[in-house]
Amino acid sequence: MSRSSNVAGRIRGAGGLLTVDLDAIATNYRTLAARLGPATQCGGVVKADAYGLGLAPVARTLWETGCRHFFVALTEEGIALRALLPEARIYIFDGVDQETTPDTAAHTLIPVLSHPGQVETWETFAGAQETRLPALLQVDTGMNRLGLSPAEADTLLSDPDSVAALDVDGVMSHLACADEPDHPQNAQQLQNFRDMIAKLEPLAPGTASLANSSGVFLDPAFHFDLARPGAALWGINPQPGSPNPMAQVVKLQGKILQTRTIDTPSAVGYGATHRVRRGARIATIGIGYADGFFRSLSNSASAFIGGIRVPVVGRVSMDLITIDVSAVPAEATQAGNLVDIISPQHPVDDLAREAGTIGYEVLTALGRRLERRYLGGGAGS
Amino acid sequence: MSRSSNVAGRIRGAGGLLTVDLDAIATNYRTLAARLGPATQCGGVVKADAYGLGLAPVARTLWETGCRHFFVALTEEGIALRALLPEARIYIFDGVDQETTPDTAAHTLIPVLSHPGQVETWETFAGAQETRLPALLQVDTGMNRLGLSPAEADTLLSDPDSVAALDVDGVMSHLACADEPDHPQNAQQLQNFRDMIAKLEPLAPGTASLANSSGVFLDPAFHFDLARPGAALWGINPQPGSPNPMAQVVKLQGKILQTRTIDTPSAVGYGATHRVRRGARIATIGIGYADGFFRSLSNSASAFIGGIRVPVVGRVSMDLITIDVSAVPAEATQAGNLVDIISPQHPVDDLAREAGTIGYEVLTALGRRLERRYLGGGAGS
Repeated sequence: MSRSSNVAGRIRGAGGLLTVDLDAIATNYRTLAARLGPATQCGGVVKADAYGLGLAPVARTLWETGCRHFFVALTEEGIALRALLPEARIYIFDGVDQETTPDTAAHTLIPVLSHPGQVETWETFAGAQETRLPALLQVDTGMNRLGLSPAEADTLLSDPDSVAALDVDGVMSHLACADEPDHPQNAQQLQNFRDMIAKLEPLAPGTASLANSSGVFLDPAFHFDLARPGAALWGINPQPGSPNPMAQVVKLQGKILQTRTIDTPSAVGYGATHRVRRGARIATIGIGYADGFFRSLSNSASAFIGGIRVPVVGRVSMDLITIDVSAVPAEATQAGNLVDIISPQHPVDDLAREAGTIGYEVLTALGRRLERRYLGGGAGS
Repeated sequence: MSRSSNVAGRIRGAGGLLTVDLDAIATNYRTLAARLGPATQCGGVVKADAYGLGLAPVARTLWETGCRHFFVALTEEGIALRALLPEARIYIFDGVDQETTPDTAAHTLIPVLSHPGQVETWETFAGAQETRLPALLQVDTGMNRLGLSPAEADTLLSDPDSVAALDVDGVMSHLACADEPDHPQNAQQLQNFRDMIAKLEPLAPGTASLANSSGVFLDPAFHFDLARPGAALWGINPQPGSPNPMAQVVKLQGKILQTRTIDTPSAVGYGATHRVRRGARIATIGIGYADGFFRSLSNSASAFIGGIRVPVVGRVSMDLITIDVSAVPAEATQAGNLVDIISPQHPVDDLAREAGTIGYEVLTALGRRLERRYLGGGAGS
């Protein structure tokens, strides 16, 4: 009765299937590297479990495609990545503190030092070990989040021993508005970054890094020595409002648990927020907000069956959503069949828009209970 | 320089700390059981990794406090729970399909059967094994999500062999509006449930179960034989708008990475959405939306330091938030110190309101990268 013609696509024990196309990640890496040109290294940001897609397969794919510079947020993420890629340069955005210095050194991680306290902590630790330890200096150019201010940079410069035991790899900063190419803050941050590079040249003569995914698509003046794309690698559009130059990486499908035909006009789901007409057919899918399908998608998201749009109706539950499948033939809505939630027809940016957020948040929220499959892999294709 | 007086509270390698008070969970279980009285068993819903709090410690605490009936959504969750609690009754809300029948039987899980296809699948499997297998029937009483319709119940009743190989434990349904005690749908669902119990009595004479957390606080007529609280066990208020009768279970703290004093009026964070005055102090915290701190909390959430409110300003980033700590003495905002995000002063329901959602979604989203600590445990206290 619940037998399906689509047995190859069926899943066991989970309510949804997340498919990650590793070859598409490799394609996107090459697209970004080509856009940057030979003067700029293309790194990869793989924090937050590679934005939820799985650190191990994603990092290995990037390495095999030529990526050598990796960025994560936390020391623990760096330790996990080091176990996968013994030779990579691994930068830790959150830097170091008293608690993390030993692990940072032991795993040859490069902390991003964002305030004088971090510089002092790392310098003191290196001095005590009688060794030189690598670091990247972060400067604030207008985001007011992390990074040295010009006054703090002056303080460091005034003490010739402030980084005596450190191999300072260079200077980085972060753009606040790179996804809005015409925002005046971009030019202001670029000028501030150039000023800080010049100022810090005596301490940090090496690499300069400013561009995130969207920064790769700004003027080449923003590229400097090392770019740090993340989102675009996973298919998120780095230029909102323009055609997406990236290949789609992620597919999300949910399993139909039950389809019912409404015999009297009635309400669907928690709070009885959506009423359906007699004769409508409602499918219940085994994905909910505990899987990262945000509750803000209630009564607003689209799904697709065989290319036909089937809207999410009613409130998103913890483990379930309900969709109106009246437009789709009954044989396509049998229990066990899969419904497309993120697909080429409905990419992650579209689902994000329906949720009132950005694709980054959708990806990082997904997948804790979903079955995962990886396509391709390696640099072969 | 980043040394703190609060060393005992410091964390390593992660940007935030989630503390779960297992004794408070035990207290809440007892509160709910007392409210139900001796005629109603109090179960526990531990799907989605016990709403994100950690299945193993939470399930063991509930068992030791006297809980014997556990509910999860997925077969895989049931398998994980069976390994922890060999003697528990474990119900699977999503039921069974062709793919999950063998695991469901092998781990002595009790599927909730919600449509005739599931009944047939489970019945056929049991018949082929020449054994009797347990099940709970779900009926739809007005949520239109999962459950047999009256017509489908009639079809089952018309075939005396439809559940011949099943030990049907009873009947359950789910309330759509239990958190709004005066919503007319509650009385309608109660009547529909009574009608379905009477109708199915020949097939399913046993247990009747209707009440979720909020249902426990409705009239005792809603309690029946077995209640299924989840959210209230973790301190979420089952009666929004009334004082919360539950003990607080969850504390969430974020680590300060850097605190800066703004030297010229400027913008904070992505999109430059928040401007700060000269002299303001901004602390950057190592928690972001990849940790489940929703992006919808941008410019709207509250945090607390030593009981003083410090608002989240600017957009929530993937790994970072910025808070305005101008109201707090500088020594309390040194790098490494912890900021209270969910606390007795600012419970999970308050953070959920700031995000435009409910506490359930906040809990299930939290904690993938957070350090976790458990307090108490067991039934002792």
